[in-house]
Amino acid sequence: MTNKIVVVGGVAAGATAAAKARRTDENAEITLIEKGEYISYANCGIPYHLGGVIPQRDKLLLHTPESFGQRFNVKVLVNTEAVQIDTARKQIKTLSHGKPDYIDYDRLILANGAEPVLPPVKGLNESDFFMLRTVTQMDNIIENIKAYNPNKAVIIGGGYIGVETAEALKNCNLDVTVIEALPYILPGFEPETALKIFETMKTSGINIVSGRKATECIKNDNKQLIKLDDGTEIETDLLIISTGVKPDTKLVETAGIEIGALGGIIVNEKMETSIQDIYAAGDIVEKKNIITGKNCLLPLAVPANKEGRTAGCNAAGGDLKFSGVIGTSVVSFRDACVARTGLTYEEAKRHGFKPDYIYVENSDHAEYYPNPKFIFLKLIFDKDSGKILGASASGTEGVTRRIDIISTAIYAGLKVTDLEQLEFCYSPPHGAAKDIVNISGYVASNELRGIGYGITPQQFLATYKNKNERMHILDVRTPAEYRQYHHEKAENIPLKNLRESLKNLDKTRVIYVYCAVGFRGYIAVKILRFYGFEAYNILGGLEALKRFKKL
Amino acid sequence: MTNKIVVVGGVAAGATAAAKARRTDENAEITLIEKGEYISYANCGIPYHLGGVIPQRDKLLLHTPESFGQRFNVKVLVNTEAVQIDTARKQIKTLSHGKPDYIDYDRLILANGAEPVLPPVKGLNESDFFMLRTVTQMDNIIENIKAYNPNKAVIIGGGYIGVETAEALKNCNLDVTVIEALPYILPGFEPETALKIFETMKTSGINIVSGRKATECIKNDNKQLIKLDDGTEIETDLLIISTGVKPDTKLVETAGIEIGALGGIIVNEKMETSIQDIYAAGDIVEKKNIITGKNCLLPLAVPANKEGRTAGCNAAGGDLKFSGVIGTSVVSFRDACVARTGLTYEEAKRHGFKPDYIYVENSDHAEYYPNPKFIFLKLIFDKDSGKILGASASGTEGVTRRIDIISTAIYAGLKVTDLEQLEFCYSPPHGAAKDIVNISGYVASNELRGIGYGITPQQFLATYKNKNERMHILDVRTPAEYRQYHHEKAENIPLKNLRESLKNLDKTRVIYVYCAVGFRGYIAVKILRFYGFEAYNILGGLEALKRFKKL
Repeated sequence: MTNKIVVVGGVAAGATAAAKARRTDENAEITLIEKGEYISYANCGIPYHLGGVIPQRDKLLLHTPESFGQRFNVKVLVNTEAVQIDTARKQIKTLSHGKPDYIDYDRLILANGAEPVLPPVKGLNESDFFMLRTVTQMDNIIENIKAYNPNKAVIIGGGYIGVETAEALKNCNLDVTVIEALPYILPGFEPETALKIFETMKTSGINIVSGRKATECIKNDNKQLIKLDDGTEIETDLLIISTGVKPDTKLVETAGIEIGALGGIIVNEKMETSIQDIYAAGDIVEKKNIITGKNCLLPLAVPANKEGRTAGCNAAGGDLKFSGVIGTSVVSFRDACVARTGLTYEEAKRHGFKPDYIYVENSDHAEYYPNPKFIFLKLIFDKDSGKILGASASGTEGVTRRIDIISTAIYAGLKVTDLEQLEFCYSPPHGAAKDIVNISGYVASNELRGIGYGITPQQFLATYKNKNERMHILDVRTPAEYRQYHHEKAENIPLKNLRESLKNLDKTRVIYVYCAVGFRGYIAVKILRFYGFEAYNILGGLEALKRFKKL
Repeated sequence: MTNKIVVVGGVAAGATAAAKARRTDENAEITLIEKGEYISYANCGIPYHLGGVIPQRDKLLLHTPESFGQRFNVKVLVNTEAVQIDTARKQIKTLSHGKPDYIDYDRLILANGAEPVLPPVKGLNESDFFMLRTVTQMDNIIENIKAYNPNKAVIIGGGYIGVETAEALKNCNLDVTVIEALPYILPGFEPETALKIFETMKTSGINIVSGRKATECIKNDNKQLIKLDDGTEIETDLLIISTGVKPDTKLVETAGIEIGALGGIIVNEKMETSIQDIYAAGDIVEKKNIITGKNCLLPLAVPANKEGRTAGCNAAGGDLKFSGVIGTSVVSFRDACVARTGLTYEEAKRHGFKPDYIYVENSDHAEYYPNPKFIFLKLIFDKDSGKILGASASGTEGVTRRIDIISTAIYAGLKVTDLEQLEFCYSPPHGAAKDIVNISGYVASNELRGIGYGITPQQFLATYKNKNERMHILDVRTPAEYRQYHHEKAENIPLKNLRESLKNLDKTRVIYVYCAVGFRGYIAVKILRFYGFEAYNILGGLEALKRFKKL
């Protein structure tokens, strides 16, 4: 008997599901329903076409409805919206240009995706604003720029899409302002690593307004005025809203399909919903986080593809399971790159772990080889189990390599002591003899073993703020490094002279040591501790410390 | 009581051991003995200084004996050779400029490293040849080039150092010939991936002579003549020998320290030798391979550093263990990069696994984003357990990222089905929505599940060579791709037209399908199988097939 499979949604999860269903069962009758005009397009590439980095619009359209239909023998219905599911009759009601139709299914895959969350800005509905998630929305912005030649753009929402859109519009020679209600743009990234992007945006001339909310939008001919909660007014010719998305569950609400507390469809590891023969995948579902075991939302292409593949296979009679998500992602602005995996420190705390963290910095390839590119890495781990919980890193090269390694380590349940052992590619142009991932393992493991005596920059700064008279701050770098920049209260004793200078140090004071990135500081603390001083090494050194000054 | 620690050998393992010993015990009395003039230098950087890529010679000298001694409070004895160990008296005899001395130890760390293996070439001992493993040897070559302005260089030995030296000497405008006795240069790498380097060397004008042995070296004033086993004679002004190394165990042979079948010192995971209070680390030891559980030799900086750290810590009273090696390495020639981890297919067979392998190709970042760089990957796994055994990859960008991920997966004991689940960084400039590591997991898992119907290019070519009349070779790419290049006997039926063309295909024949890299071929085979054809997909497609034509 022929299996009638209907897939709702034709982008990442949906297109993947339909293709995998076909590869699983050549005999199935597969229908793909997409409310928009395009299917299987590269939505992550949209900002890059807008900004001219991908000049050919066609490159984004991985398949036309025809080519997809032909290759996978799938009936593709574009400009068609699924508006109702009759789970008893196993039938979907669709609307195409106002015309209703009814499609029977044996198995249904819901990949409707997400819908934008609009911010509570007065007058927004009456204003002219754009979004940048679909090809059609992209076309609209491009047409607007061509037609009206706007000078000033305001982007409300400083997440991934906000940052990528800022780059694109800057490439189009607009004056760009990004407004983010939270204290920092790129919420979800550790700010001390995301700083790399804040700074690059600023030096590229992007105006970043964070920690302030847009409250009102006043339309005035072609201009619009954005009012902020502190009274500031920003004029704009082009307004973009990128304040995030939520699962688009309009279709399923009346169908009795279970929705979770986070607003997404609940699925099991086979991507089955609570209703038999209905599967769901992509931005519409809640995903099990592998680390916490709890559900989360993660509207990204990578899990959407995997879930689509799993749902498509199972709906067509195959047997695949999806393990869940880790939370790996990357965002860049020009050459600045920030990536994360797993949990942030705050997320780890919220989920009941006993997290700790360390900072390290090292170059992507051997420092003695030309053009070393430095990576700054925060590693978050559980104090009780030693398990790796997350990592965040910034730099220009090699950032994704390290985050992908740590994502793999988290998937496998590895501990920080395992990071000491991992074996990576090394030759001078292609790595470091002691890779930053190994080094992060050394530092974190030493903390767990109680032999590191590290203190986070945040702890140090809190102590310093309290003006503790017993503090003695020691900079163990060379005099040349010290002269360039140093902590206002730091005394300079270069590491090589430390042993002979011990006699001048006061044992009644607590010594806080720093160097450039933490290694010489660690050696110094080992010496000081041996001679009976209470000494701590500032993790990540001045490199980490400086970041908190800038945040 | 003061712990007297003596370290023999001052480069990667030795310097690391001494430094870690100091960090573990500030009170220890540490002596580092190095027979050469330099310690703690970047030996992997040596070919890059020779070739002018690292212009400053100083960059290679990470520490002078003085700076190292001062930072770590270590007595550094350079130009001093350890010539005898008296294990009963716990005493080392040294010679410095012919003068003997005796040094007592409580704990001894042997990090003597390796010594070169010279090939059995008649007249070699009487000839003028150079090696390129130490700073002094590098200086000698540079001086020779300056003094004699040689035109032609011959490098005997086409391993890592041979290839890197070829790049360096080519940079110095010499005519370079590399002679390798084995069928291909870079033995130890899968030749179909190392091909990337062979080809780049050839197009860069390097003369590669492989599968032939140098048998004799005839000196003739400044010129030397290298005779090969097939009678060829190659003239050279500069002869370099890089035919590998073996553990330098001269010092330990008389001390009763256990040496393994491979010629290296036997150590446990604490880096303890068979004699109490004697540790060993680096190129001198046999390393436990994590995958096979058996010992191997792996004279590389990465394990040497880890072993040195472990030995130094334990000798100073700490407690660290080294898990063993995986066999991860990278070599490049200009922009061509080849990396490997774990076992090759042949190694896996030799070690009693039931290995299988697949090929995939994909771009480092989204193909629709400008300048995609393609990576070719061979994944080796165990048919019984599904465990990942090894991988080898080539390309220009992103190669090390993928090999490091797979190395981590091997360390964690992951299976190919886990590679389907791993979650990597993706944004158009920084990755692919379906990463090549995920794809390798899909393909390998499908083979394990028996739903891939893949055939290796090697199996296909063997069948083809037997002129099996029942073969039908199908190219399912587009006509444009087909016209560019195709298999001599292949019929072109583009994938999109396959279903309508089935009626023209002969069910009594076995169909071998290929596309560019294997994905369309896989879809085609699924269709063909459904309609009752015996069909196989050539793994890695034409991309893999072509490589065997070139090898």
